[in-house]
Amino acid sequence: MSKKPLILITNDDGITAPGILALIEVMETLGDVVVVAPDSPQSGMGHAITLNNVLHLDKVSKPGDKTLQYSCSGTPADCVKIAINEVLDRRPDLCVSGINHGSNSSINVIYSGTMSAAIEAGIEGIPAIGFSLLNYSWDADFEASKKYIKQIAENALKNKIAEGIILNVNIPDLKKKELKGIKVCRQAKANWKEKFDKRQTPQGRDYYWLTGEFVNYDKGTDTDEYALQNGYISVVPVQYDLTAHHYMQHLNTWQFEK
Amino acid sequence: MSKKPLILITNDDGITAPGILALIEVMETLGDVVVVAPDSPQSGMGHAITLNNVLHLDKVSKPGDKTLQYSCSGTPADCVKIAINEVLDRRPDLCVSGINHGSNSSINVIYSGTMSAAIEAGIEGIPAIGFSLLNYSWDADFEASKKYIKQIAENALKNKIAEGIILNVNIPDLKKKELKGIKVCRQAKANWKEKFDKRQTPQGRDYYWLTGEFVNYDKGTDTDEYALQNGYISVVPVQYDLTAHHYMQHLNTWQFEK
Repeated sequence: MSKKPLILITNDDGITAPGILALIEVMETLGDVVVVAPDSPQSGMGHAITLNNVLHLDKVSKPGDKTLQYSCSGTPADCVKIAINEVLDRRPDLCVSGINHGSNSSINVIYSGTMSAAIEAGIEGIPAIGFSLLNYSWDADFEASKKYIKQIAENALKNKIAEGIILNVNIPDLKKKELKGIKVCRQAKANWKEKFDKRQTPQGRDYYWLTGEFVNYDKGTDTDEYALQNGYISVVPVQYDLTAHHYMQHLNTWQFEK
Repeated sequence: MSKKPLILITNDDGITAPGILALIEVMETLGDVVVVAPDSPQSGMGHAITLNNVLHLDKVSKPGDKTLQYSCSGTPADCVKIAINEVLDRRPDLCVSGINHGSNSSINVIYSGTMSAAIEAGIEGIPAIGFSLLNYSWDADFEASKKYIKQIAENALKNKIAEGIILNVNIPDLKKKELKGIKVCRQAKANWKEKFDKRQTPQGRDYYWLTGEFVNYDKGTDTDEYALQNGYISVVPVQYDLTAHHYMQHLNTWQFEK
């Protein structure tokens, strides 16, 4: 058995996305890599899991390939579950998801398939990180981000990550010399102002496309949005205990009867 | 314009589920009600949104019906977005989601379509509550839960809910006299031990069903799982700022270079 760390890679853009190829390249310098990723794009899937349909799992790497690769018909969270239970013969030391084509900063973490895969691994007790580049294009250039992704993954392998915590890493779409370094941040308070683009089918039935404009309400200088706008890579520690502990006392003042 | 509070209702089991009919019945005693719910079951959808497909929205209530009802082809989170932007002519005073057929306590909140709809409303600044009954059956009896749902919704209308907070309410599947009251709780530390049921198609191709067993690791007596097991309705305040603020200082000890 290899002494190298075992690294599980997944994403939400699908196994053929350039972003996951860049992530595989970096992780192959750090350990033994296994890829289990969706067979088609899964953007905006949030933490969906497949309960009402079956899952297919296909080995797509060939004998002699450096890295085992599987495609799965499910969501990013499904990929992590099936990887751990049906593909890997030991527990991974790290799970990395991405590199997403597009931002998962601030409120986007909630909608993100990339982060849901990392969070799923975290729930299973595996140190996990989601990586995203702020460029939605299939032709995005991941070159400048590789050095920082390697640093963060190396730190996670060395220092571990506390139970219940997952790292959400976003990278500005800048050239190597323009990137200013890594900043630990909190999630900015922001949301999407939706706009539905209403159209008609050729048969005259109304339908809608969901579109929207991102609005950052947060003036703080310790947020991920601020770091990204100023040329820094943002690292936000996120948790899946959603309890607003500070609000429990207030709720106990509400009037409830048996 | 009505002086009554406007209450938006949605769910993840679909607009024909008995659970949403029970919720409509309770909310009609508290305000003007509009329903925008998925046209088909969306369990396990997490916080998915529809980015790569179009959305259909159909009025399903008839002229003279007490309550306006629309079905939407999207996810629970889509339903809330389209309701606010395309259906309602004023901001709702409350958004309620459910009553879900099955538990959304502890880690289930992460996978829950019911809670994702409530959280989406919370992100939009609308006080919101998700309700779930611990019975997965379509024949579940929602009668005993109605009194408590009404109390919690009345409190939310009267006291509001702080910005950034959404209530996750779970109800044991018990008779009226067995229910012991309402408890404010934290999310228990629990997860699912997955088991993939591997089968073969008639053509001999492998496929999998995702199944699993729920495991509660949390010995605390202040958790939602503990309350539910002891006959109480659990109310957990949840937040969509996922930042693990307490872990930021530790991450700053990691070795990052520019």
